[in-house]
Amino acid sequence: MYQVNTNYLKLPGSYLFSTIAKKVAAFQEKNPDKEIIRLGIGDVTQPLPKVVIDALHKAVDEQADAKTFKGYSPDLGYQFLRDAIAKHDFKDRGCDIASDEIFVSDGAKSDSGNIQELFSEDNVIAVTDPVYPVYVDSNVMAGRCGNYDPNTGMWDRVVYMPSTAENGFVPELPEKTPDIIYLCLPNNPTGTTLKKAELQKWVDYANQKGSIIIFDAAYEHYISSPDVPHSIYECEGAKNCCIEIRSFSKTAGFTGLRLGYTVVPKSLKSGDASLHDMWARRHGTKFNGAPYIVQRAGEAIFSEEGQKEIDELVGYYMENARIIREGLSSAGFTCFGGKDAPYIWMKTPDNMSSWEFFDYLLEKINVVGTPGSGFGPSGEGYFRLTAFGTHENTKKAIERFKTL
Amino acid sequence: MYQVNTNYLKLPGSYLFSTIAKKVAAFQEKNPDKEIIRLGIGDVTQPLPKVVIDALHKAVDEQADAKTFKGYSPDLGYQFLRDAIAKHDFKDRGCDIASDEIFVSDGAKSDSGNIQELFSEDNVIAVTDPVYPVYVDSNVMAGRCGNYDPNTGMWDRVVYMPSTAENGFVPELPEKTPDIIYLCLPNNPTGTTLKKAELQKWVDYANQKGSIIIFDAAYEHYISSPDVPHSIYECEGAKNCCIEIRSFSKTAGFTGLRLGYTVVPKSLKSGDASLHDMWARRHGTKFNGAPYIVQRAGEAIFSEEGQKEIDELVGYYMENARIIREGLSSAGFTCFGGKDAPYIWMKTPDNMSSWEFFDYLLEKINVVGTPGSGFGPSGEGYFRLTAFGTHENTKKAIERFKTL
Repeated sequence: MYQVNTNYLKLPGSYLFSTIAKKVAAFQEKNPDKEIIRLGIGDVTQPLPKVVIDALHKAVDEQADAKTFKGYSPDLGYQFLRDAIAKHDFKDRGCDIASDEIFVSDGAKSDSGNIQELFSEDNVIAVTDPVYPVYVDSNVMAGRCGNYDPNTGMWDRVVYMPSTAENGFVPELPEKTPDIIYLCLPNNPTGTTLKKAELQKWVDYANQKGSIIIFDAAYEHYISSPDVPHSIYECEGAKNCCIEIRSFSKTAGFTGLRLGYTVVPKSLKSGDASLHDMWARRHGTKFNGAPYIVQRAGEAIFSEEGQKEIDELVGYYMENARIIREGLSSAGFTCFGGKDAPYIWMKTPDNMSSWEFFDYLLEKINVVGTPGSGFGPSGEGYFRLTAFGTHENTKKAIERFKTL
Repeated sequence: MYQVNTNYLKLPGSYLFSTIAKKVAAFQEKNPDKEIIRLGIGDVTQPLPKVVIDALHKAVDEQADAKTFKGYSPDLGYQFLRDAIAKHDFKDRGCDIASDEIFVSDGAKSDSGNIQELFSEDNVIAVTDPVYPVYVDSNVMAGRCGNYDPNTGMWDRVVYMPSTAENGFVPELPEKTPDIIYLCLPNNPTGTTLKKAELQKWVDYANQKGSIIIFDAAYEHYISSPDVPHSIYECEGAKNCCIEIRSFSKTAGFTGLRLGYTVVPKSLKSGDASLHDMWARRHGTKFNGAPYIVQRAGEAIFSEEGQKEIDELVGYYMENARIIREGLSSAGFTCFGGKDAPYIWMKTPDNMSSWEFFDYLLEKINVVGTPGSGFGPSGEGYFRLTAFGTHENTKKAIERFKTL
């Protein structure tokens, strides 16, 4: 008789954003006249750049003609896209990453959920706390996290690295050595970034201890400070201990188009086992490539015109970040992030819990954000707002905050 | 120190189609003047139907305007597509499947590779032999298959169900009860189909033994015989023991566009554990939906015009199947399938091995097919040809076969 994977049954409640969606829907149903402003889930609101739209139309037309029709994509991505990524995202920044170390996928969420498959079931993961829930949940499903304690909100085989206002949201290097370290920089949800010398410490630690770093750089394009690295491969020795995950979602508005990639350097080895070959095997066995038309859309952002358009797009959202950060500060709230990142991480006022503050904002000013505790126990007492709304809604939301 | 998932290292050689691609590339390099005809990998060659192209252009234009822009898709698929699938693929055929039992994905390969995650690591799988390699390989990666014997080409924890000319390519119900049974009908690679009464036996067996059937119906649209079921849910009791996987790849030429879906009925339970809820959780955690534009393209094939166009498309390929089947038979070869399926499964002549015949065809007539042994030990001595070429190339290939 078949049995289910009981690790799935250990997961408490539903996925954070599903819970929020349900609460908001219930509120809206009870209050159909209220205009809700959503600064919760990190979804973009601006249309796709013109270069992307043009590339999509052109590629669709190719699919209408037998002479230019494309069937299955190469498992690991079209060469034109892998070459463009290697040049613009790495070689031009001085990182020695080759095209064939880049694996094109349907997005950073898939890759960050699937990457854990490459590792032994008894490996121990470390995460910053708070953290993007996918890292922990995907490891729970694989049986790597032990048991959940509902009182602490923690799994007993996970190394948590608290990131709070007290340490400037930069955790200490862990005392108990983990096997796999997840780092997301610029950070979701806290908006923290690290300077190169600080990031180098993590790479050195991983190389020294034999740990591997899964580096999620989905928000790389939001960095404007010159001393903040865009890729972990800007650090020395990173090619021996780091996998980097990237996304087109926030860089170019692809949340509904689905495109991302993962870098697995060929030098990344555990004994004779090549992580690069293993990831290629996974792609070949369980994935059939991102759509041709979407890969052409991805290529388009690397043209001169494309770069200009995505800079404008990111600039639009960063103006929202400024409006939120300055508006909340002037209204007396304490907030962090929003400088090299599209997230503003605020302290809840009057020692309210994160969910209390969520309900309070929804009820009083009809603004939706994300409760910090949804990202981990050290997120309790914090609240995340995103810069991905429209200018109009963002300004309106901040005016409403000022009435509180 | 991190350790890799050693199950990956047990996988022998590379993925079947990668090996073929390398052999063909090497031959072409040595013989640049030879015109190779590819009837190997099951990739389509005809352009996308007009309704699909129109739907894509329209959806792309929506993505260019903030008022109609769509970001993240619902994790489980857009309602418009789930409704269209539930109506056309199930309710219209008398199957009681609801929209919310349909999970839209980026393709049947992903789903058939990922579905094993829902089950306990010590569950035993059964596969027909020969079989689509993804079922076994994805279970090997999860540690469910034991060890590989290079002499027999078999894994010691897998139940193989030989399907050969001797049993009409319909295996016996397994004596040793497996937990998870993979069935692909119409079958890849043998082209076999089952009548409803025969399929009902498998459903009854699964319900009686407490096994679950993973039913891959990717080639459903190639069925023309009236007594062959298109969905396993046409059988009584299937909603208690079956998951069905479907694809838009061969039905509508979506191999490069990527769209599929999996049906997990809400009545499918192991004790209190709902497979439906577990699969929803997997989607929510490790997947971010198929692209909006591609889901609109999928919806388009369910219109009256869309149905007409995909019937013509499938008719085009089935005409190739007829050309191959009749041509090879008249040339004295023994072949099977190709009636309700786009695959022709032929016996190699003169007791040649599958790979010997592959090399022989490539060398002598520059035609590429797929060695039967690549699909499992019982595929030895057989060879697969696909109907997905152009009429012109298919006819030319058959003329070349006649010169042998």
